[in-house]
Amino acid sequence: MQVIAIDAMGGDHAPQAVIKGVEEAKRKKIIKSGIILVGKKDQIEKYSTQLDQLEDVTIYDAPDTFKMDEKPSHILRRRETSLYMAADLIKNGKANALISAGNTGALLAVSTFVIGRIKGVSRPAIASPIPNKKGYTILLDSGANLECKVENYLSFGKMGLALQKINGIDQPKIGLLNVGTEEDKGTEIVKAAYQLMRQELGANFAGFVEGRDIAAGTVDVVVTDGWSGNIALKSMEGIGSFISHLLKSSVHSKGIMVKLGALLMKPVFSDLKYKTDSRNTGGGYILGVNAPSIKAHGNSDSIAIINALKVAEKGIESMIVEKIQHSMQ
Amino acid sequence: MQVIAIDAMGGDHAPQAVIKGVEEAKRKKIIKSGIILVGKKDQIEKYSTQLDQLEDVTIYDAPDTFKMDEKPSHILRRRETSLYMAADLIKNGKANALISAGNTGALLAVSTFVIGRIKGVSRPAIASPIPNKKGYTILLDSGANLECKVENYLSFGKMGLALQKINGIDQPKIGLLNVGTEEDKGTEIVKAAYQLMRQELGANFAGFVEGRDIAAGTVDVVVTDGWSGNIALKSMEGIGSFISHLLKSSVHSKGIMVKLGALLMKPVFSDLKYKTDSRNTGGGYILGVNAPSIKAHGNSDSIAIINALKVAEKGIESMIVEKIQHSMQ
Repeated sequence: MQVIAIDAMGGDHAPQAVIKGVEEAKRKKIIKSGIILVGKKDQIEKYSTQLDQLEDVTIYDAPDTFKMDEKPSHILRRRETSLYMAADLIKNGKANALISAGNTGALLAVSTFVIGRIKGVSRPAIASPIPNKKGYTILLDSGANLECKVENYLSFGKMGLALQKINGIDQPKIGLLNVGTEEDKGTEIVKAAYQLMRQELGANFAGFVEGRDIAAGTVDVVVTDGWSGNIALKSMEGIGSFISHLLKSSVHSKGIMVKLGALLMKPVFSDLKYKTDSRNTGGGYILGVNAPSIKAHGNSDSIAIINALKVAEKGIESMIVEKIQHSMQ
Repeated sequence: MQVIAIDAMGGDHAPQAVIKGVEEAKRKKIIKSGIILVGKKDQIEKYSTQLDQLEDVTIYDAPDTFKMDEKPSHILRRRETSLYMAADLIKNGKANALISAGNTGALLAVSTFVIGRIKGVSRPAIASPIPNKKGYTILLDSGANLECKVENYLSFGKMGLALQKINGIDQPKIGLLNVGTEEDKGTEIVKAAYQLMRQELGANFAGFVEGRDIAAGTVDVVVTDGWSGNIALKSMEGIGSFISHLLKSSVHSKGIMVKLGALLMKPVFSDLKYKTDSRNTGGGYILGVNAPSIKAHGNSDSIAIINALKVAEKGIESMIVEKIQHSMQ
């Protein structure tokens, strides 16, 4: 049986949201895999209402916790935290995938150094799904490696390709983020990465793309360094919140007919919310390590946790790790 | 009398949109300054309907044009193009501000090398206004300098400060774009820029900000290199278009009551459109050169041109150049 280890103490609403999500996922038989809740046993027991009635859910006691602002390098020395112990379960063959809604840098550190890198991947990357008109664009790296070497861009491209294939896209198109689409645009490093990717990725490589292509869905994968990916991701989040704020405050400032209109349009706003709500993607993979490792959003509620569990299970079943291993040879 | 030179041939809808904007701005007395339309005389005359009845509007014949994809370095050798000749009018004291809706790189090149840099500014920067809850955040550099030195960040900060002061913000707050807000986050260059800006900008410096702060309006000015600024700007544009597409297609797919709701909510969507439509800002300054130089959006219509003329006039009247000169001493 496949097993998912989840950091019960990570995230703004932990451990309650994590426990609730796990309970619901198992009760409604959404998740077939076994689940290990890793964290302070007494706390998990305190907040759980039905864990003892559920099959294949166990608690693994981790006595230590760490603060959100602790440095990732410190985390690696704190071997009794829920995150470290969850990663250790994978290293020891007791679990097959990892989920945490806690500190991204810490998850990246334990994924890289405890679970370990896939051979041929020098830099694991955070792959964030961004909604587009057809589905989701994978943006990677979205924050793991602030500065990259030419070969890192290529391996991000290969990993994004493997991920979009398991997401059902037959021949994913990969774009390289730049400030323009002409071959002579950009910094020396992206020009060099362009040449290497064109050579190695063949017809899957669609050349340079710009920031606006990320949400437009011009390509299925957008490759960039972690600095630029993080700036793009958070800038887009900011505009999303701003538009939502504008809509609400504008409705609020207007008369009864507009408010009626807003009421009638509720199904549209639900659509919009569903499509843009990061909870529905379940989170992004840390790609390039020897097990599916999923970063759930920091403010994950139980729905987000269920979706993260789905992502983890899909990662195991579709053999994402083996596929990346294969593409690196 | 103050005079604005406008590139009549630049932009997707040139020269018609430029001529129409100029005619309306003068006819309705929106703009007091004189205006020189620089471009192919026969074409300008062909599309103009009332230029001869308007005071203080003249045509300055520029026989040459260039293509959108021409390299900025070539433009500098093409001295009979509308853009070059418009910049030359400023150099020769015949005009006080420049507007173009054409190629950004070309405008940057003529602004830097024909109009000339302000003493103490080694790198002019593109300052883009991004809507936020209270007004506009100035994002600079949004594309002129892909890679920057530590001192460039400081001068971008000083220029953004001067701009927001003429926009009526008494003590503008300046943020430095990073992937996190803690002092130890980021690349070596932004950490060094942080120290320099903290030292030189005093209470106006608000420290590191993240991508989501641009549209949130946490600060009045967001400073970054041109690479990151361009990525952020275009990523935000992409999400804006995507949300607009989602709203429309969702309304389209639903029943009559939702469509009625959309009709009733029209004032709200007008608000949203007004606030996020780049035509309403008139364009961004190229800051750091010896005259107000305004990049209007490539798809400018006559309304956008009128707004760009307002920005140019305000730039002259508020003495933005002198204020930047002063802040560089």
